[in-house]
Amino acid sequence: MTDLSNVKALAWDVGGTIFDWHHTIKGEVSAIAKAQGVELDAAAFTNMWRFTMFTRLQLVRRGDLPWLNADQLHRRVLDEVMDAHPQLTLDPSERDELNQVWHRMDCWPGSAECLEALRSRYRVTVLTVMSWAIAVDCSKHNGISWDGILSCEFLGHYKPEPEAYQASARLLGLDISEVMMCAAHKGDLQAAARAGMPTAYVPVVGERGEGNDPDLSPDPSFTVNATDFADLSRQLLA
Amino acid sequence: MTDLSNVKALAWDVGGTIFDWHHTIKGEVSAIAKAQGVELDAAAFTNMWRFTMFTRLQLVRRGDLPWLNADQLHRRVLDEVMDAHPQLTLDPSERDELNQVWHRMDCWPGSAECLEALRSRYRVTVLTVMSWAIAVDCSKHNGISWDGILSCEFLGHYKPEPEAYQASARLLGLDISEVMMCAAHKGDLQAAARAGMPTAYVPVVGERGEGNDPDLSPDPSFTVNATDFADLSRQLLA
Repeated sequence: MTDLSNVKALAWDVGGTIFDWHHTIKGEVSAIAKAQGVELDAAAFTNMWRFTMFTRLQLVRRGDLPWLNADQLHRRVLDEVMDAHPQLTLDPSERDELNQVWHRMDCWPGSAECLEALRSRYRVTVLTVMSWAIAVDCSKHNGISWDGILSCEFLGHYKPEPEAYQASARLLGLDISEVMMCAAHKGDLQAAARAGMPTAYVPVVGERGEGNDPDLSPDPSFTVNATDFADLSRQLLA
Repeated sequence: MTDLSNVKALAWDVGGTIFDWHHTIKGEVSAIAKAQGVELDAAAFTNMWRFTMFTRLQLVRRGDLPWLNADQLHRRVLDEVMDAHPQLTLDPSERDELNQVWHRMDCWPGSAECLEALRSRYRVTVLTVMSWAIAVDCSKHNGISWDGILSCEFLGHYKPEPEAYQASARLLGLDISEVMMCAAHKGDLQAAARAGMPTAYVPVVGERGEGNDPDLSPDPSFTVNATDFADLSRQLLA
């Protein structure tokens, strides 16, 4: 049995791990296309928006773009995604409005219950590259409460830089070995482990839409591998 | 009737407004003095600790001290307070331990219920000069959940500098006129108003101990003046 007695707080990824960006955004984009009477691959539109945003975030990390938060990056990238889908027509204010869809992402089934249960034993916090407002608004949209929400937007470093994980522990007044990173993304957890954090992996099926799952198998290098949210609660509360 | 339709979020002060530093710390200091069999004015010890901390914070604001968070300031000031009370004996690790009392402050009666009620309509957040860990830990100690907790320790400016209030609204993705500052301290509210925020005043009787209350009368310059936490809920949810 894994010894979790040293773990006092959890730092959760939320974009993709707790909040279902793909289906929420695909649904909204599909509805707009339908209203305009145009054919559109809304899943491809959505994934292009998400993944291009991360390529831009990489430029911010490297200092090749000025410091921007996720809302600013989403908005810039939306213009590129719209250029690639010329059948859809949105003026700048309609694009600003669509950009707010990131603030209303639905959560994955079972995630809210898991987080609430974990709060009985741990300080359950967020460590996200999304903006603080996205995390606050999506949590409220789903009725989820945290013990605290940290966004890389004000930590001066974006995950997976080690400084982001270190800041999360420092601000909690804890040693980094006492804060467990929880995520559905192996790269995030691997970076957290390199920074000194214990790690918990929870696979999320369908994050990028149906049939686009990466390797969701357990990784023995993580402290905990769960099969789903309910299993994660059980393991962390054992 | 005050028009609150533009208010989307509340930014709460917590040290003194929600969390009762005086009685919590006085109780712990009294217990230590009793265990050591020494006479001590625990109320005076407590108030010296609190108010000297704020004089040091002023030096951080002015740049005359390096950037320190509330835990670091409390710990430094504790040495000064101990020097002024030589009858008490605590070694450095015992002082570190006592410094943690700020993470277990009890909340004022009625405050938790008020905050929970207000979450039905507003994004209810914290904007504090206390460390993020103090706000997280005291909230957990009292079973209080927020929609988000911001500490000046990572905003680069301490209240009452206008930048601290502005950061609170910017991080929420809101105009500053949409975020109402809620506090028991008139100076905090006056500074928030100068920065462009609507304001709500809730008097807290006995914050500095019995018989040490400043002027607790309503101030017509504030957007809302409440008589207590229950009255504040009623006015903000009307």
